Amino acid sequence: MNIRFARRMASVRPSTIREILKVTQQPDIISFAGGLPAPELFPVSEIKVAAERVLTDNGPQALQYGQTEGYLPLRETFAAETRSRGISCAAEDVLITTGSQQSLDLTARVLLDPGDCILTENPTYLAALQAFQSCEVRFAAVPTDEGGLIPEALPELIEREHPKLLYTIPNFQNPTGVTLRRERRQALYEIAARYGLLILEDDPYGKLRYTGEDIPPVKALDTQGLVIYMSTVSKTVAPGLRTGWVVAPEEIAHKIVICKQAADLHSSSLDQRILHAYFRDFDNQAHVNRIRQAYGERYAQMDQCLRDAMPPEFSWTHPEGGMFLWVTCPESVNSSELMPRALQEKVLFVPGRDFFPDGSGTRYMRLNFSNSSPEKIRTGIARLAGVCAATALV
Amino acid sequence: MNIRFARRMASVRPSTIREILKVTQQPDIISFAGGLPAPELFPVSEIKVAAERVLTDNGPQALQYGQTEGYLPLRETFAAETRSRGISCAAEDVLITTGSQQSLDLTARVLLDPGDCILTENPTYLAALQAFQSCEVRFAAVPTDEGGLIPEALPELIEREHPKLLYTIPNFQNPTGVTLRRERRQALYEIAARYGLLILEDDPYGKLRYTGEDIPPVKALDTQGLVIYMSTVSKTVAPGLRTGWVVAPEEIAHKIVICKQAADLHSSSLDQRILHAYFRDFDNQAHVNRIRQAYGERYAQMDQCLRDAMPPEFSWTHPEGGMFLWVTCPESVNSSELMPRALQEKVLFVPGRDFFPDGSGTRYMRLNFSNSSPEKIRTGIARLAGVCAATALV
Repeated sequence: MNIRFARRMASVRPSTIREILKVTQQPDIISFAGGLPAPELFPVSEIKVAAERVLTDNGPQALQYGQTEGYLPLRETFAAETRSRGISCAAEDVLITTGSQQSLDLTARVLLDPGDCILTENPTYLAALQAFQSCEVRFAAVPTDEGGLIPEALPELIEREHPKLLYTIPNFQNPTGVTLRRERRQALYEIAARYGLLILEDDPYGKLRYTGEDIPPVKALDTQGLVIYMSTVSKTVAPGLRTGWVVAPEEIAHKIVICKQAADLHSSSLDQRILHAYFRDFDNQAHVNRIRQAYGERYAQMDQCLRDAMPPEFSWTHPEGGMFLWVTCPESVNSSELMPRALQEKVLFVPGRDFFPDGSGTRYMRLNFSNSSPEKIRTGIARLAGVCAATALV
Repeated sequence: MNIRFARRMASVRPSTIREILKVTQQPDIISFAGGLPAPELFPVSEIKVAAERVLTDNGPQALQYGQTEGYLPLRETFAAETRSRGISCAAEDVLITTGSQQSLDLTARVLLDPGDCILTENPTYLAALQAFQSCEVRFAAVPTDEGGLIPEALPELIEREHPKLLYTIPNFQNPTGVTLRRERRQALYEIAARYGLLILEDDPYGKLRYTGEDIPPVKALDTQGLVIYMSTVSKTVAPGLRTGWVVAPEEIAHKIVICKQAADLHSSSLDQRILHAYFRDFDNQAHVNRIRQAYGERYAQMDQCLRDAMPPEFSWTHPEGGMFLWVTCPESVNSSELMPRALQEKVLFVPGRDFFPDGSGTRYMRLNFSNSSPEKIRTGIARLAGVCAATALV
């Protein structure tokens, strides 16, 4: 039978990354592709204790339906976390979601009609593009450099495109690793306020800084209710628990709750209570410090290996945190065509193209360093450099 | 600032039930409102053992990102469960979702464009209406009686409305408790096949039969790939784990996966593995038998109390399973106006209106019997009957 699918399905591209992730199940492949945290660093024993306590003390409640907004004590935990980043926030301001992806999806569904324009960094997080695409929006790219998006370019763009929303990942951006400079955050907010432009600020990596000083989020400047701030425990505790949160202006938060009722009623009661017990009974900051140390070493290792082995025509970013760096190949190289050869050598990356709303950007590669041991990074980068050298010579 | 929300938000009604659920936190209120299972019957100690085993044996994997389609061993568990209901099904045919609500939402988003028509029972599950409303669809009601929807009414409806999808809950329907008769399932499928109409078959309660014989799902008849079958562990294990599944024709399943990538990447790895260990190591059928026994007694208790105390102008359904019965008030009674008086007497129900796509149905009440002890049922129905008697007299 010939099924007519919804029109929005024609706009959503399947995620290359999630297809690639299936290949990475093979044990002899070294993957710099996924945005996976290091599983050997997960606080497994602490989560186990937390799960045991929750099911001993509040088993029936942990297995029962809960409120759409989230488990109130965990909302307070995330409010405190949000306040520690310089944002004024109460428990009631926090909405718990089934991971950051749902925060993106619900925000998109609440705000975006077909044809609406979204401003994004170019490149940007590809699964955010997916969430926006399902609302059949247009994208307009904000020019960026090593200091993040360039605010001076915004007024012209805003006047021409009348965007509904600007989406930004200010800290250690996915895929480039670049951080939005402090003075640019101020300038961005001032322009947004002048034009009444909403900002969706995605901050999954903010706590994973290895060097330099923390910069307050754009939301910390938000006196006018223009910024929707979102974060997650996926990088600081564990992604498998699918728990993120949103802090949005009240009117938007109200609509997000209605939309979440229709999307999944609420997020897992058990996972929320386990996370609450974990944050209550253990020192997550100490855990984050351990991750930062390890990821900082892995980044340094990858950077050094790239310096040692990559042909001189290749360059890459030098992030101060996060999980990714971004390689620029010579113009003659198409990184999507590099993929099968890399796979032959049993090393994986994500071709840059998928991160560009307009499908440009064929000369880039995203490399994840958090998910591989220093030794695997050495071996994997040697393999990748070999593929790159062979390609650059052709 | 004046925010322009997406057009779809004008179509979605907030859930009265979820608002009512907030009130039910007060301990002296007896609530027949929510569709909550009995928490004292949850297999808490078994889930605790399962959680401990998962985190001991596979902690890092249970906390890591997973595949969008779901954890393969759990897909096999649900495939076996689906086969036990008479449906041919392999693990690869099962997609795991963040609860049935997400199955509804993803199916809607994959198939429905604004203006598309959905056929539903009238009344039907209100959170399904929410999921459909967010796609800005039209509804057309299929006439129903005590044997479920009436297939003979379909051809005219189909020819007039050109529906995209028929949504049905054939077993112990929410809100009426009514079951679609065996011969009607056959007739429904034949008509669907004749017209190429897709059927979304929602089966959360099928395992909760107290009396009579199981009837195979419509999906068991599906030789042409027209039926999307969905079920959940919310009523048979625990709803707090937010785990449901969908078995859909291949082409639709593929689109659901793409849509789920954009919606929440995947459902909780930890919850999926805990459920898998639970089904592997414990006898869930024995557990379901205990629930059926208890709910059957609660239903009988509620039915008896209604007979004893309700004014003669009130009637109600006699479901053979599930969690709800459906009260028809005299025409003069508006059940929404009854609500505040019932609340004063500290008893809660859901007014019927919300279950009707067209907002009609003001004379009905949905009563849940699974979530209250027999003693509470006695007290609560006495209170409710008092309110009804006072109202019917006016």
